[in-house]
Amino acid sequence: MTTVELSREEIEAVCLAALTVHGAAAGNARPVARAIAMAEAAGNRVCGLYYLPIFCRHLAIGKVDGGAIPEVSARGVTVTVDARSGFAHPAIAAGTPALIDLARSNGLGAMAVRNSYNCLALGHHVHPLADAGLIGICVSNAPAAVAPPGAAAALFGTNPLAFAVPSKEGTPAILVDQSLSAVTKTEMILRRDRGEAIPAGWAQDRNGQPTTDAAIGLEGSLLPAGGRKGANVALLVEVLAAALTGSVLSTEASAFGNDEGGPPHVGQFLIAIDPGHFSAGRFSEAIDNLVASHEAAGVRLPGHSGRKQAVFVDADLWKKVRLLSEPEDTR
Amino acid sequence: MTTVELSREEIEAVCLAALTVHGAAAGNARPVARAIAMAEAAGNRVCGLYYLPIFCRHLAIGKVDGGAIPEVSARGVTVTVDARSGFAHPAIAAGTPALIDLARSNGLGAMAVRNSYNCLALGHHVHPLADAGLIGICVSNAPAAVAPPGAAAALFGTNPLAFAVPSKEGTPAILVDQSLSAVTKTEMILRRDRGEAIPAGWAQDRNGQPTTDAAIGLEGSLLPAGGRKGANVALLVEVLAAALTGSVLSTEASAFGNDEGGPPHVGQFLIAIDPGHFSAGRFSEAIDNLVASHEAAGVRLPGHSGRKQAVFVDADLWKKVRLLSEPEDTR
Repeated sequence: MTTVELSREEIEAVCLAALTVHGAAAGNARPVARAIAMAEAAGNRVCGLYYLPIFCRHLAIGKVDGGAIPEVSARGVTVTVDARSGFAHPAIAAGTPALIDLARSNGLGAMAVRNSYNCLALGHHVHPLADAGLIGICVSNAPAAVAPPGAAAALFGTNPLAFAVPSKEGTPAILVDQSLSAVTKTEMILRRDRGEAIPAGWAQDRNGQPTTDAAIGLEGSLLPAGGRKGANVALLVEVLAAALTGSVLSTEASAFGNDEGGPPHVGQFLIAIDPGHFSAGRFSEAIDNLVASHEAAGVRLPGHSGRKQAVFVDADLWKKVRLLSEPEDTR
Repeated sequence: MTTVELSREEIEAVCLAALTVHGAAAGNARPVARAIAMAEAAGNRVCGLYYLPIFCRHLAIGKVDGGAIPEVSARGVTVTVDARSGFAHPAIAAGTPALIDLARSNGLGAMAVRNSYNCLALGHHVHPLADAGLIGICVSNAPAAVAPPGAAAALFGTNPLAFAVPSKEGTPAILVDQSLSAVTKTEMILRRDRGEAIPAGWAQDRNGQPTTDAAIGLEGSLLPAGGRKGANVALLVEVLAAALTGSVLSTEASAFGNDEGGPPHVGQFLIAIDPGHFSAGRFSEAIDNLVASHEAAGVRLPGHSGRKQAVFVDADLWKKVRLLSEPEDTR
């Protein structure tokens, strides 16, 4: 694979241009472009530029509404955001300041986002909560792709879960961001396109039989990480992100990756917790000890690296993205 | 195995007697006895009578304080309960009414229980939340027994997670209750005592090498369900149940199963969510559809069975429990 070396800022600028050229309002395009650039900078290719051409196409055909203005309302310690078939990123960003205020004032707050879209890496959405000194948890449902043990059909999406734990220093001490399938659908697509086999336990065919062929697995279903127990965690995500937010179930959501079915209308659910309301100042010390116990055992906990390294992007993909960022009459 | 047929009420009465004979105040013994009887009635042997002799011994040696009066305080939408080295069950029960009120008034509430003890099946603690029309989530840490991938040492407990989802009918539509290890420690002990082999993926030896010998696995560490992803969910439980509540980390907790180390001082964390604050009346319909989608695929979601069948208990264990329930001067 030929790559080009880019800065995070270059990627963000080109994404912003591509999204606005395809009809997104600047205020909606900006948080999406930033999330894509940050994913690439973190080496998370499955939530990065891979999706930019899809997002541009969805803008063009109305599968995502680039002009949507998220509607935010608050009640008790809960924030509800209707993304109105627009991007997830501006919807989540619109509710985040109120969520932070509620959690700081009451110890706890939650945000439900409905009629939403592919929110890409969920770590991006909990990071600001940890920056504000809060524990942040975020879950999202996604188009059905994963079958629980015993089912031939996919009953929920990869239903990702992220959480961030604040440190005394301001950056997250721990930042976990993962799908609850054994592997992401995007990784399956990359393997299929490269003609590579997949390990046992990642997927099954359309009759519920195990397979190591990525193409056959994509026609069938992914499998959850951790069997029945993992499927139950994905079920909790479905309850919170889909049913509680008033979004569609994963089985009813249109695909993130093709042009069919109109807006996916999935949901996101976030919880913010202020440790200061609970543990009388001992929280940071406990987290330091938890991180230290892992490091002593040779395990590095996932966290914020803070690195500002150069980013290497597939040259063909970058060329495609640059083309998408040019005004239509020059293409 | 010879068994005796018993009613839930018989089991509860004998447990209550055994716990009070060994020094527990009646108000503390009652919720523990009830939880043990309900676990047996649900066929959950690893959280049932198996622990009664251990609880009696711990009462006698002061590893659990049978006279402790839980200290409940509220702030914002959070309830904090100091179990004061007593049983988990009366501590959680003491805070539950306030948690329900907070969630109903504000959409969301949380309860942190510290200086606590083995809370047995967590489903028992979220059931009352679902009965009150709320989504209930409960997590607990536990003495270190599970090693994340790449570590030879156990860095967290089986760190169970339960959640209950309310139905229109009052009983939980969904009730999940599971450890985050591939298997419970109690199941490992039962296998060891029966001399049965364990499947690959349950445990490793003290050097971090795979084993199918339950005894060697118990000397080493259990493994998480779902590898690194499962370990990360257990890490979230550790953050909430141990660090946030101000309890000890799993690596610092004394064992639930032996007489060493004084009170374990683990923690429990519960979240209660009122669906009515979020999804404008569509929640029950979405949950019905979610349950129906699973049933159509041949998967029965874990829920409340409501059955009132006879309970079969190992005769030797029952004899032991009956002896423990007799006043000391008659034994």
